[in-house]
Amino acid sequence: MSDAALLARAPRLARRASRMQASEIRELLKIIEQPGVISFAGGIPDPALFPVDAIRQHYSDILSDPASAGRALQYSVSEGDADLRDWIVDHMRSRGVICDRDNILITSGSQQALEFAAKLFLSPGDTALVTAPTYLGALQAFAASEPVFRDLDIADIDATVAQFREPADSSDCKFAYVVPDFANPSGETMDLAARRRLLDLAETLDIAIIEDSPYAALRYEGEPVAPIQALDLAGGRTIDHSRVVFCGSFSKVFTPGLRLGWVCASRDLIRRLVLIKQSSDLNAPALNQMVVARLTADHFDRQAERAQAHYRAKRDAMLEALSRHMPAHARWSEPEGGMFIWLTAGAGIDTAALLPRAIEEARVAYVPGRAFYADGRTSDAMRLSFSLPDCAQIRAGVERLAALVRQAG
Amino acid sequence: MSDAALLARAPRLARRASRMQASEIRELLKIIEQPGVISFAGGIPDPALFPVDAIRQHYSDILSDPASAGRALQYSVSEGDADLRDWIVDHMRSRGVICDRDNILITSGSQQALEFAAKLFLSPGDTALVTAPTYLGALQAFAASEPVFRDLDIADIDATVAQFREPADSSDCKFAYVVPDFANPSGETMDLAARRRLLDLAETLDIAIIEDSPYAALRYEGEPVAPIQALDLAGGRTIDHSRVVFCGSFSKVFTPGLRLGWVCASRDLIRRLVLIKQSSDLNAPALNQMVVARLTADHFDRQAERAQAHYRAKRDAMLEALSRHMPAHARWSEPEGGMFIWLTAGAGIDTAALLPRAIEEARVAYVPGRAFYADGRTSDAMRLSFSLPDCAQIRAGVERLAALVRQAG
Repeated sequence: MSDAALLARAPRLARRASRMQASEIRELLKIIEQPGVISFAGGIPDPALFPVDAIRQHYSDILSDPASAGRALQYSVSEGDADLRDWIVDHMRSRGVICDRDNILITSGSQQALEFAAKLFLSPGDTALVTAPTYLGALQAFAASEPVFRDLDIADIDATVAQFREPADSSDCKFAYVVPDFANPSGETMDLAARRRLLDLAETLDIAIIEDSPYAALRYEGEPVAPIQALDLAGGRTIDHSRVVFCGSFSKVFTPGLRLGWVCASRDLIRRLVLIKQSSDLNAPALNQMVVARLTADHFDRQAERAQAHYRAKRDAMLEALSRHMPAHARWSEPEGGMFIWLTAGAGIDTAALLPRAIEEARVAYVPGRAFYADGRTSDAMRLSFSLPDCAQIRAGVERLAALVRQAG
Repeated sequence: MSDAALLARAPRLARRASRMQASEIRELLKIIEQPGVISFAGGIPDPALFPVDAIRQHYSDILSDPASAGRALQYSVSEGDADLRDWIVDHMRSRGVICDRDNILITSGSQQALEFAAKLFLSPGDTALVTAPTYLGALQAFAASEPVFRDLDIADIDATVAQFREPADSSDCKFAYVVPDFANPSGETMDLAARRRLLDLAETLDIAIIEDSPYAALRYEGEPVAPIQALDLAGGRTIDHSRVVFCGSFSKVFTPGLRLGWVCASRDLIRRLVLIKQSSDLNAPALNQMVVARLTADHFDRQAERAQAHYRAKRDAMLEALSRHMPAHARWSEPEGGMFIWLTAGAGIDTAALLPRAIEEARVAYVPGRAFYADGRTSDAMRLSFSLPDCAQIRAGVERLAALVRQAG
């Protein structure tokens, strides 16, 4: 048997693989490793912020006590560590989402939560509404379920709805996916009015909302906006009747290395998601969950404040450098938090075509805008992340990038 | 919107959920917690064997060095830690599978490898060949891709092939799944002739073989049998043309808590599986992989020998107690390794119907045979695991179980 014949046995994958792009993260880790290249590409937390000493101490404590060590190293329940879920319940309540432990599932990062949402809702050919641009990893996670992607226009809900009214109807539309806080890649935050419009849209189309909010704790200015899930409940609905599936993460505040996130949703959906977790990988490592449960209890707010100060300075450095160096045809978002600035180069520049020159000549990396569109359309935009480089690198990198954009324009 | 309406938006899940049973592990952890119940139910490693001190030391060492700590707590490559993959290459080579790093993917336990195999090969309605009985967790992992299960009869390959020849053909058949070493649940090991017959079957039907071998290192007597993948290569084929997808695990020798396993397959399949890993959860936690890489390098053989001695005594205690106490209508397998004995109670006993009495009256737990059949058929068999209880509990539990079986017969 040739391997071609073996692969021909995997038609579903073959179809899907063509839609899956080489991962942002993999490619970008490679770029970062090139000496002299300043990378604005990866949405990667700064390891200088990892609370390494606290993490090491928690591993040591848990593994020093025979009872907790035995539990930490054994198979565990698919829904996740009870203490960690209880902390999440308190955290969600503090944000206006009244829920209890049965509304929480621990996932292996919020990437897994997105993949589970697709498994839960999407059959091949179903419609998923996504903003344009949207998070690349979500497109990859959803693609495995072979949906049709349609544009979600939060500013023009009527246009979004109109896609379904004639000629097609909306019965195959299953959810709308958004990153409401400091979005990846746009950096933009949905205001209260936009969140309410989205809830109205979901009501009109009778669909779920996947609210992906890994950056919420990283706000550098302005007032927090209530989660869409909280607004859904504010109308008098309980969490067990909410149409919102909220996905949270410990990757951005603590560390992405332990791969832990969560879903908050109605208990009926959680019950089904637990079955999906179980058949997917049984459970997230109990030891890692116990470590993060101890970290959150001691450190979450303090660590979030530390991260805010650290990343605020980097964001400010990037915004200042953009103002100073970019040509007039370029525009960019001014995020109130998170890790990303969305820069529109203008002047008909295809940022995907420009990337090799950016890396080879300007020695600076970014993610081309087209990676963030389900249809892979040509784009004159790019995503710039300010999370990993230091302020001096940010200034130098933006200056080099600006010269290239000016030259290409 | 009612939650019923929301769930009606998830028809695919609804179909699948009805096929997914409450997890063995979840249910059994609950049973184990009942005081006084001796559980032969879970296939759960004995925590007395966990190399806790070595694990604690490795966590401490990795997190004490800023360079390795930064790497351990950051996002990482989807294919897995290079050192760990290199150890696996050596391990597979020692078992007759000549491969290199590009043939290895690290998964979150071998459960994830099974789910990925289903994602890779199965579209809804495709056929998966499975032995009857087979591993419950595999049925759950495959069920998400909505296949048709057909019986794989290793003793009668002609009968297996005949299922396809008339009237249906085999073009929708994608793989045969086996646990060749000390199978879960039967405890049986496929001999060389059976492995060769399976390869012939795969050649005839032109399908892949999923070789799930988490227990291979736990052999208590007799000579190791070459992996099916090694036999496939022994004919002169290279790993990059092999039709076998080998799934291994660190759960049974070290600890299931770190949730690490691997796939060894052709690089074309691995490349596609890496994309699946990436869209599923990006990567297994780098820190845990680094710990297991250090454990394997120092400890694998020693730890396997320790586990062999420990579990051999438990197996012997169970076999002896079965011989001493079970009535004449009961029969059971005599496994050369692993964690399971398959006991056929005989006398028309429905072991699923008997389970409540076993727990309530005899204070002993097992997994009813019917859990291990894709069609959920009534069964007079049960799976007994000897891995967790101590020898005295095994003797007492078997005596109590035997009295119940005698009474029910």
